[in-house]
Amino acid sequence: MPEIDPVNRQLVLAARPNPGITEDLWQRRESPTPAPGEGQFLVRNQYLSIDPAMRGWIAAAANYAQPVPIGAPMRSFAVGEVVASRSLQYEVGEVVMGRFGWQDYCLCDGPEVDRRVDPALAPISTALGVLGINGATGYLGLSLIGQPRAGETVLVSTAAGAVGSVVGQAARIAGCRTVGLTGTDAKVAQCRELFRFDEAINYRSEPDLAAAIARACPDGVDVHFDNVGGAVSDAVMGLINERARIVVCGTIGIPSDPPPLGPRYNRALLVKRARMEGFLVLDHLDRLDEVVETLAPWVRDGRMQYREDIADGLEQAPAALTRVLAGQNLGKQLVRVVPGAG
Amino acid sequence: MPEIDPVNRQLVLAARPNPGITEDLWQRRESPTPAPGEGQFLVRNQYLSIDPAMRGWIAAAANYAQPVPIGAPMRSFAVGEVVASRSLQYEVGEVVMGRFGWQDYCLCDGPEVDRRVDPALAPISTALGVLGINGATGYLGLSLIGQPRAGETVLVSTAAGAVGSVVGQAARIAGCRTVGLTGTDAKVAQCRELFRFDEAINYRSEPDLAAAIARACPDGVDVHFDNVGGAVSDAVMGLINERARIVVCGTIGIPSDPPPLGPRYNRALLVKRARMEGFLVLDHLDRLDEVVETLAPWVRDGRMQYREDIADGLEQAPAALTRVLAGQNLGKQLVRVVPGAG
Repeated sequence: MPEIDPVNRQLVLAARPNPGITEDLWQRRESPTPAPGEGQFLVRNQYLSIDPAMRGWIAAAANYAQPVPIGAPMRSFAVGEVVASRSLQYEVGEVVMGRFGWQDYCLCDGPEVDRRVDPALAPISTALGVLGINGATGYLGLSLIGQPRAGETVLVSTAAGAVGSVVGQAARIAGCRTVGLTGTDAKVAQCRELFRFDEAINYRSEPDLAAAIARACPDGVDVHFDNVGGAVSDAVMGLINERARIVVCGTIGIPSDPPPLGPRYNRALLVKRARMEGFLVLDHLDRLDEVVETLAPWVRDGRMQYREDIADGLEQAPAALTRVLAGQNLGKQLVRVVPGAG
Repeated sequence: MPEIDPVNRQLVLAARPNPGITEDLWQRRESPTPAPGEGQFLVRNQYLSIDPAMRGWIAAAANYAQPVPIGAPMRSFAVGEVVASRSLQYEVGEVVMGRFGWQDYCLCDGPEVDRRVDPALAPISTALGVLGINGATGYLGLSLIGQPRAGETVLVSTAAGAVGSVVGQAARIAGCRTVGLTGTDAKVAQCRELFRFDEAINYRSEPDLAAAIARACPDGVDVHFDNVGGAVSDAVMGLINERARIVVCGTIGIPSDPPPLGPRYNRALLVKRARMEGFLVLDHLDRLDEVVETLAPWVRDGRMQYREDIADGLEQAPAALTRVLAGQNLGKQLVRVVPGAG
């Protein structure tokens, strides 16, 4: 049996954003590590996933999920090992991915688990990135709403990120011209060299972003995988082709409070008969296995590259989140809970 | 052979909107009525269709169609009779609907015609309204993008209009709750009594439009057939349900120049995984016969009501258009070119 620490370290949400997200919104708490009851099992977290969507999870307003309650461990996707079990479904030693929170141990009834992870397939950390929620977000959002066809131009924002890099690479594999928008020159280089975008643009340093996008997309934009919204989206809207598809996947470029005004998109959508549609991967968790079946061979043969940015230690989670929200991570942001874990 | 007037009266576009659309943008011109050459035929217009989309057709900027050139007869859908023919396709006496312009006679090569009209089916004027472009706009926009399911709530703006009234009635026939937005109390009464909407709201007189819509849509809005955009759309956006469909069919509520700013819809679309898509009936003219096959039985058995607002005389066309753009028509606005035509 694995050794189980009697103390379960947790990071609980202590306050809501006001409006900024700062590290002191979370407090450390130590609780006794729970023992599984009948039908339950205990997961030892190995890696936590740090995601921009957490901004919405801790907001006071109901979003697509109920907000994390004050005093509760922070909601988080994580990958971990079953270290104790009184469940017929999960055995000790199995690796699972699910919503296990910012803590050492998560007592599970079953629904917390999103999928079992095969450690032989790839490093288990990929179950939180390219072969996890981020990969599924990029691949399914692109496939289901973007519906790219060979020869089309696919533009993606946060292109060096865990989602955007999957979108760009999946679009390239589908035969599309791929153009990435990102926020630093280092990420531009990563987009070009590692993720093999046809073009990459630093949206922060371009004096005329619309003109830069127009140069990079001489045939217009057929699919815009929009992870940011705001001024970047505005710049793209004038360049969409007829029947363009805009995947609304993130709105990190639009402040929450107060939300700013912007140009109305109705006429552009009408004139181009374009579609703009919200995509939320949580609606599609039943397709995770299918996504892994598609992406894992691409990861193994090198067509689908990924990068991880790993912070060591549970206590680093709040700082890792603020780094992600500031766009300072270079690769999928993870927190390694168990120092030296594989 | 029908008698053919040697003089063809035309209303030609003399100037572009600056920015208002006024009657003096058009000038009357008299030309010799052309004689058909080999393969051509001559249509005598009976009714002209007056449509809000004309605002876009005369704008300087390229829209989904090339702008009407200065000096050319105003583009217009019309229904008329073939009065001379050297074509194997069309015989004298046939009634046709197509883009014949603001003039007495249109010399045709064939592509101008959108469909043949069966005068036995319904009054030929309906080929410009409920059984024409407007009916097709409402029915196809609702079916193809709105995709209403029984029990859902369908909200439509310009609900008493030629398109909106078809949307509402087709949605009711599909088993939906129907709520209409319109701009006068007379139109509200028409929506309730003639077009049998479950609820109708005068958006001009409601102090809190969002609250009024919320009362009329206790289960939220599943389909918003949006003919206006702007503040009305903003009021609806907070009430959409998950997976809502917003059919962007018109933007008459959004001034062209300069286009005003408005709240950004990205987050609402994302949180509700909703879709917003432009619909242009000109993409679907090949389905007009199918639309007529569906709607004509409803018109005949009374389930689908319509109203016409007829101005008499070609010279009334500009005034009729300004009336439509001011929302003063009560029913499908037509111009009867031939006084006393059937």
